[in-house]
Amino acid sequence: MQDIDKANVATSCSADEAVCVRPSVVVIKVGGAVVEDATSLGNLLEQFSRIEGPKVLVHGGGRSATKIATSLGIESTMVGGRRITDGDMLNVVTMVYGGLVNKNLVALLQANGVNAMGLTGADMNVIRSHKRPEKSVTLAPGEKNPVTGEMVEEPTKVMVDFGWVGDVDEVDGNRLAALIQSGIVPVMAPLTHDGEGHMLNTNADTIASQTACGLASVNMADNSDKKLFDVTLTYCFEKPGVLADPDDDNSAISLITEASYAQLKADGIVSGGMIPKLDNAFAALHQGVSRVIITSANDIEGAQGTTITL
Amino acid sequence: MQDIDKANVATSCSADEAVCVRPSVVVIKVGGAVVEDATSLGNLLEQFSRIEGPKVLVHGGGRSATKIATSLGIESTMVGGRRITDGDMLNVVTMVYGGLVNKNLVALLQANGVNAMGLTGADMNVIRSHKRPEKSVTLAPGEKNPVTGEMVEEPTKVMVDFGWVGDVDEVDGNRLAALIQSGIVPVMAPLTHDGEGHMLNTNADTIASQTACGLASVNMADNSDKKLFDVTLTYCFEKPGVLADPDDDNSAISLITEASYAQLKADGIVSGGMIPKLDNAFAALHQGVSRVIITSANDIEGAQGTTITL
Repeated sequence: MQDIDKANVATSCSADEAVCVRPSVVVIKVGGAVVEDATSLGNLLEQFSRIEGPKVLVHGGGRSATKIATSLGIESTMVGGRRITDGDMLNVVTMVYGGLVNKNLVALLQANGVNAMGLTGADMNVIRSHKRPEKSVTLAPGEKNPVTGEMVEEPTKVMVDFGWVGDVDEVDGNRLAALIQSGIVPVMAPLTHDGEGHMLNTNADTIASQTACGLASVNMADNSDKKLFDVTLTYCFEKPGVLADPDDDNSAISLITEASYAQLKADGIVSGGMIPKLDNAFAALHQGVSRVIITSANDIEGAQGTTITL
Repeated sequence: MQDIDKANVATSCSADEAVCVRPSVVVIKVGGAVVEDATSLGNLLEQFSRIEGPKVLVHGGGRSATKIATSLGIESTMVGGRRITDGDMLNVVTMVYGGLVNKNLVALLQANGVNAMGLTGADMNVIRSHKRPEKSVTLAPGEKNPVTGEMVEEPTKVMVDFGWVGDVDEVDGNRLAALIQSGIVPVMAPLTHDGEGHMLNTNADTIASQTACGLASVNMADNSDKKLFDVTLTYCFEKPGVLADPDDDNSAISLITEASYAQLKADGIVSGGMIPKLDNAFAALHQGVSRVIITSANDIEGAQGTTITL
């Protein structure tokens, strides 16, 4: 590939392999709320553009999709925070995530001197998925039953067909690595494809973790099984990190390891919705990601956030 | 770049440079009508997938954009066949061209075994444009005056602000060549950017010719000024080619050269709207494109169409 930005991908190794420094790559996931508000978007672009070296941005866009769907007279139905995606809604998310949000982010990053390229999983076949089969879901009281259309009054198990929603099978880490090595910054929309001609609406957190794992699996070109990249996976939330006291934004736990995680759970400091997030973080670490950072969108490098390592 | 499909880009040279065979690349432009109708789209994908070697697809999507705009309550105003693109319309074309049409084409091509990647000019900064300045346009009788909103009764000159419409400055042929050399098939939406954070609605015929010229300008890696590719630029229209008799679809002229073009114009065989098309074709040939083919979407390899060479 021409125009390779060698500075970006240099691996400096001494004769002693133990001091070999792998290039780092950071995969940063930001939610729709961050990219859909002009002030937070400007702040994000400024921070993201400042990060040196290889980087990947993964974005959401759910609020814009809901807004456009409403304007087009298409009703949005969410179950457990996930969007049911019929054919019309698939067209909306393909337009909004793959077009409106993605291309505007790419144009703004280009204006900030970042050589961004928008990607869905279909582009270069970088993320192959399959359509999610019907799935048993327990609805919380107050949630709408997508089958009957009625509010449930107590926890209720239903089989839900999420429609054109993708569960990820495979990320082509080599292809992404080649792009990154040529100086490109992938900007990934929460869309994949099934290899049979259909786009699939896909959770952005999952795209981020699978992309990070895919990049962590890439071997060095010398055909050894040494890994090319040191990968950081960063999730930007509203909160500054994993909080020891949920009411105190200054209580972010700076480091969680597998050992301390067990203790935090036992002590009840980490509970509820944070547990699946941390379980997913450890799953990514076990697949070769070096560290997961949970931080706020005001601090995407995670200096004040929570770092999770094995 | 990894995964380079060397077969795609081999340049076979004997010691005698005169018999050096450059790899060919074909840039095919199809209009919105072709990609927006399921039957003609299937036909196109089948033909396009069959073409061996490097290829680029450039698509339109105007009908879908008009339809979505109407559903969103946004009026489409065309002047001389070009869309006036205010901020709301820019959002629509960014969604429709960059998302809906582009990503569905990419997914369908992937299902056909073509490693497609969707691109706008903003992605990897492949096509930089500037916002079109106000322009003097002569309205034909019956056309709506975009300034007064009234139909004109006789040819009328008006200054028209086309809004967020791009006039192309530069195509990064090296970047596109590198992608193509790695086995990727670019699928290009009619959108570019201004380098200042704005997407720009850009004529698909222009994207196609500028892309072909950009690829034709790429030098071989040996730093000589020898050109890497033999470039064919193909426009698919409703008609099977440039017709000697406009009422006879079997009268396509198989070859037009600069010399025969002068004669065809003098004899009145080529006239009207075909003249700017052919002038643009010759402009591309003078910028290094080897041949321009005007053909129907049923014959994208142009076997029955019109080939234009210097």
